[in-house]
Formats: sequence, C-alpha cells, structure tokens
Amino acid sequence: MAKIAILGYGTVGSGVYEIFQDSDFSKKIGESVEVSKILDIREFPSHPNPGLFTKDFNDILNDAEISVVCETMGGLHPAYEFTKALLEAGKSVTTSNKELVATYGTELLEIAAAEGVRYMFEASVGGGIPIIRPLASCLLANNIERIAGILNGTTNFILSEMINNNREFDDALADAQARGYAERNPAADIEGHDACRKIAILASMAWGDFVDYNNIPTEGICDISLTDVRYAEKFGAAIKLIGYAEKQDDKSVYACVAPMAVECNNPLAGVTDVFNAIMVRGNYLGDAMFYGRGAGKLATASAVSADVLDIVRMKSLKKPMRWETGATKMLEPGKKKWAYIVRTKAGQKEIDSEFNPVKTVTGVVESETGFITEPMCEDEFLEKIARVGAVKYIRMLEN
Amino acid sequence: MAKIAILGYGTVGSGVYEIFQDSDFSKKIGESVEVSKILDIREFPSHPNPGLFTKDFNDILNDAEISVVCETMGGLHPAYEFTKALLEAGKSVTTSNKELVATYGTELLEIAAAEGVRYMFEASVGGGIPIIRPLASCLLANNIERIAGILNGTTNFILSEMINNNREFDDALADAQARGYAERNPAADIEGHDACRKIAILASMAWGDFVDYNNIPTEGICDISLTDVRYAEKFGAAIKLIGYAEKQDDKSVYACVAPMAVECNNPLAGVTDVFNAIMVRGNYLGDAMFYGRGAGKLATASAVSADVLDIVRMKSLKKPMRWETGATKMLEPGKKKWAYIVRTKAGQKEIDSEFNPVKTVTGVVESETGFITEPMCEDEFLEKIARVGAVKYIRMLEN
Repeated sequence: MAKIAILGYGTVGSGVYEIFQDSDFSKKIGESVEVSKILDIREFPSHPNPGLFTKDFNDILNDAEISVVCETMGGLHPAYEFTKALLEAGKSVTTSNKELVATYGTELLEIAAAEGVRYMFEASVGGGIPIIRPLASCLLANNIERIAGILNGTTNFILSEMINNNREFDDALADAQARGYAERNPAADIEGHDACRKIAILASMAWGDFVDYNNIPTEGICDISLTDVRYAEKFGAAIKLIGYAEKQDDKSVYACVAPMAVECNNPLAGVTDVFNAIMVRGNYLGDAMFYGRGAGKLATASAVSADVLDIVRMKSLKKPMRWETGATKMLEPGKKKWAYIVRTKAGQKEIDSEFNPVKTVTGVVESETGFITEPMCEDEFLEKIARVGAVKYIRMLEN
Repeated sequence: MAKIAILGYGTVGSGVYEIFQDSDFSKKIGESVEVSKILDIREFPSHPNPGLFTKDFNDILNDAEISVVCETMGGLHPAYEFTKALLEAGKSVTTSNKELVATYGTELLEIAAAEGVRYMFEASVGGGIPIIRPLASCLLANNIERIAGILNGTTNFILSEMINNNREFDDALADAQARGYAERNPAADIEGHDACRKIAILASMAWGDFVDYNNIPTEGICDISLTDVRYAEKFGAAIKLIGYAEKQDDKSVYACVAPMAVECNNPLAGVTDVFNAIMVRGNYLGDAMFYGRGAGKLATASAVSADVLDIVRMKSLKKPMRWETGATKMLEPGKKKWAYIVRTKAGQKEIDSEFNPVKTVTGVVESETGFITEPMCEDEFLEKIARVGAVKYIRMLEN
C-alpha cells in the first residue's frame, strides 16, 4: 500500500482525492494507493473523511509513510518551498502547477535527481492530455524539431465563437466568463501568459535545456477582430492562439506565443471550443498531434494521478530528467521567418514596391487590400510594413 | 553501453539500424546503444558494416552481451519461435509485428513477466504515433470506456480520395497502389484485417484481457461507393474505416471494424490522406486523440527504437503488463446499438412503418431516399431493414 498526500483541496486536489477514493489500482499497478493526508487552510466539516485534513505542512513532511505528494495548490509560494522541502525529504512530488514548473522546474528536477525521487508534471500542460510523458518517453528516439500547440482552452473557445458564430471578441469573452471558462480577470488567458508558461515547459522538455518564459515574446488575442477572422478565412485559414517553439539549425531555440493563421488542412485548424491540441514534429516521426480537453477537474486530476501511479509502480530511472540552465541560446525573435497576412489601405503599387504577395484579396473591407507575404525575417517584415503601412498583420503558421 | 540486435533487415529493421547509427542517445538516457548483430537470410554486400550480419539466429540468442532484440521480421513464423526463445533467454524484445502481438501477445507477455524482461510493441499500432504507452501509462488513472480509431492509412487514403476528389473506389485504390501505399494484393488493408489486428491489440491493452481478433466482426471498404460518400456528406458526415472497441456496463467488450459515417464535428472526420488517429475515451479524461502518420520506415522504426531506449533506461516494473486469457466476455455483435444511414428505394410509408427517421434526404439518386435511424440494436435493425429493403446501409459513429 502506497500512502500519498495532497497539498491544496481545490478543484484539482479534490479531483485527485475522488479518483483514489473511487478506484482500486492494485490490479493495474500491483499496489493500492491511499490518500492519507490533505493540507488545506480551510475547513471541510462536511467532508466524509475530515480526519484526513491538516493545516500544518509538517504533518505531511514528517510522515515517513507518505512517499508521494500531489501539489495542487497553484501559485509560486508556498508551493515552491513545500515542494523543495518534500523532495529534500525523499518524497516524490507530482503537480499541475505550470507556474511553479516554468519558474523553478530546473532546480526542483535537480533536487529530485539528487535525492533519487521524482518531480512529475504531466498535468501542467494540456490538462489530462498526455503530452509530457510522450515527449519524455514515446518520442525519445526522435529529435524534436518543433512544437506548435493550442495550449489555452479559454482563448480557443473565444476564437471559435468568433469564427463559427460571428461574434466580436468582447461578446465571446463575456460568454466565456458566463460559462466559467474565463476568470473575471481574464488577463492570464487572453494576453497569452498561460500559454507562454506551457510552451516554456514543453520547450524545456523537448530539448533538455531550461527555456525561461520571460524570454518568450508573447502576444494575446485582445486585438483580434472579426474582420481579421474573415480575412484569414478568405485565405483558407483559421486564427488560433499558438504556443510555438522550434530548434534552429544553429541549435538555438525560437519560441513565441501569438495569434496565428492556421491553414485549414492543418489539423490544428479544426480544434475548436475549449479543446487543446499539441502538434509535435520529430525528425523521424514527422508530425504527431495530441488532442483533448486541456482543463477540467477530473481530466487534470487524472493526469496528476497517472504520475502518482507511475512513481509507485516504477523503480527509479537510470537517468533522471534534468534541465540544464544557461545552456539555451534563444534565437533573436527578429530573425525568425514567417509569412504574414497583411491588411492595408495602401495601393497595389506600394504593396508591390516592398512585397511579392503570394495571394491577394479585396472587398472584405472597403478600400482595404489583404495579402499574404512570402516568408521573411520578422525584422525585415517590420521594416517593410512600416513603409507600406498596415491596418493589421498576423503571422501564418507554416504547415 | 547497451548492445542490441535486429531480426529482419527490411524497411523497419533497416530504419532501426539507421536511427541507432545516426544518434548518440547517451545524453538522453545515460547510456549509449549499439546495434551489434543483424539477422537476415539475404546478403547485403554493399552495407557499410557487413560484419554485423548473420544468417544464424543462434548467434544472437547465445550472445550474452545482447540485452534487447528488435523483431522487425513480420509474419508469425519464425518470428514467434525466435521471440519466445529470446524472452526465455532473458532478453527483452521490441517489435512492430502486429500480427504476432495480436496472435501470441498473451503468451509472450507472460513469458516476459516470468523472466523479468519486457516485450514491447509501440510500433505495432499507429506506426510512430504514441498510443500503446499512453494507454499503458499516461491514462492509467482512467478507466477506458471506448476506443475509435482510423488505424489503416491505405484505406484512409482511398476514402479521402473518394471524398475530396470524387473518385470511385477502384480508381482510388489503383492510385494508392501506384503510390506504393497499397500492396498489389490489397486484401489485408481494404478488407479490414490490418485494422482488426490493431483494434484487438488496443482492446487487450485497454482492459488487460486478451481480445482475440478472430472474435471481431470485420468489414472492409470494398463496397463503399461514391454515392454512399455523397449521402454521408448530405448528413454532415465523412465515411471512415473505424476500428472500434468499448467496454459495456456488464463488463463485456464490444469490438468491430467497419466503415462508419463520422460526423464532421468529430476530429476523426478531419483525418485525411494516409494519416491515422486514435480517439480514446477515459472516464475522467473524456476524449483524447492521438494523430500522425501510421506507417513509414523511420516513423515506425522510431517507435521500435523508443521501446529499446525505455528498456535500457528503466529498471524493471513492479507489475509487468499481462493479458488474461479467457477472461474477456465479448458482447454479441447483434446487441450493439448503432444509428444507421440507410439508402432505400422504399416509400416514406414503408420507411415510417419500421423506423422513426431522425433525418431524411432525397434527390441524391433518383427514386432513392436516404435516412438516419435512431440508435438501435444491430439485430433489431437487421430485422427491420429486411422488411423495408435497402440499397445500402452504414453505421454512424456516435460522437
């Protein structure tokens, strides 16, 4: 019998409790798992098992019988201090806390490796969709070339409403809030910060060197209008908020979060509503996509629980995962090549003086032209477009 | 340094050799891997390393330094005898051989467990797409409720050509053969036998009890006409060859392979060309989909290689995977409920005497009506449709 503890009895933490309460995993992993303590500062008087709760972290830290702890508190502090203390005490930790992993992942993985325990975070990206473990294990024989993902369900819901139901951004956002998909303060979602932390984790996983989310240029979707959506449609594409990372030939890493036009023959374009999907390109495998609900109490909790089960049934790894710090050379964002969809009031002659448009449309908005540029470095594009003048431009995701 | 051997230097086997030749995995797994012997009855005089080849299986069996063997011969014999002997000699085996896994998987897993070695077959389903390991590990906390997959790239290419390029079956098949996607004798693909073995493996994985592919009713796509495709379109659906398995409330398993109409809002409907995709429904996770190229030399070889790397870097599992035999109670196929798209020359009155059509279209073919039935047991449907008379009917995949 393995004994585990849960830190934080919120949405995900209570989901983890439910899963271990409802299932006997001894048939699956050869050992049963029991939640023996739960840390939360709140009272849960009507809980069927109130004796599990403690307000004192030391009750868990000093309980020698507890071998795995699920950190589902969220936030950096005290989640960081608690996780560090637990790993140093020889307990494995699983988490859904993307902020913590993206900020302190390197140090926490290092401590886990030194102590011979594990720090696992399948639930930190994509909710219950398996993506961390496939990157760490199933795709191990591949060199990952790039990752492009719809990593935030709230923004994907908003964009889907704009695309499919012709709603303006504000209207779609209000609906997302009414349905509980978006927070009252939706900045972390709509400004791309949530997706940024997730792509930082995926990039760190893919190449084994820590990618600091502070170094990832991040744009949200607040500026995307229904007209932009219609232009993208004219060009056979759908606008999605994409978390993007790729390894350059010179071994530097490029990463960004930005709304991008995704061509309709790309499976990412068909990912609607609150769903997430992550497309991973391996040198041998080509593109593989992982799709599902990126959030939700039990989906996320099932990923935290799968990490627990993995720890309980595995003996140790010969080579624990580590992220090197300081080793990641980031590509200067201006050097990254993109094709762009441009909306402009400039005439064809001015357009042609700077660009060789691949495709042009008119008539979507009066006295406006829309065109797709050839792929070019962002720096070069910005210079050219400053001379031509643009109403709006948006990157296109290369298939 | 781990030493491995390859059985069969065909497409996949030579891909495995290339991957281990091209990559130094010591950074990733803490140990380098070297191909030290290759078994093949053919001569490869121009191979850069001819000394690796042997025609005598015993050279590999009796080489104490070889700890992992990749079986990429295909076929049942002598792959079965070789695999068994290797496992009994304490060597782990990884394979891409779906026929062998679907036929002798139970026994081979049993021997591996008894010997403390591993028998792994990520490459047997979905080529390089990670699906076996996610089922075995990432989704461990979930009870799998159903699996619906596009498991055969050749038939998906043919159906995609029919849907998108208006081609008849024979024409699309000839093209698939010309491109090398389909064999000269395409029966294993187009009659559904390949997909059948794959869904049998997935079902055995999902519920831990051996599902014999001989017990899975299997229909291919030879009878699907362009008219059927157009009817499905009228009902907002695309025809796909689906490998299907689900756990019933009474714990019995239902499985089949059949062309099914997949509604366009289902991500499986958007999977075109030679791509494969597997949709897995977990009780906590909901639907997750795994998508990618289901075949190809290096994609498949990279999955075989990932299994090798996993074996080399892992110490043993506390609870090795096993499939129970005889434990699987299969649902009688006639008891499974489906909605059907029906094409009939019967009049509305005759239709209404047996069915309550959910939707009806006319005008696709003269003097024909198309309708969607309510979901009903296959037995009941067959009785009713015998009385009404049908030109064609096809199951609809429930979303």
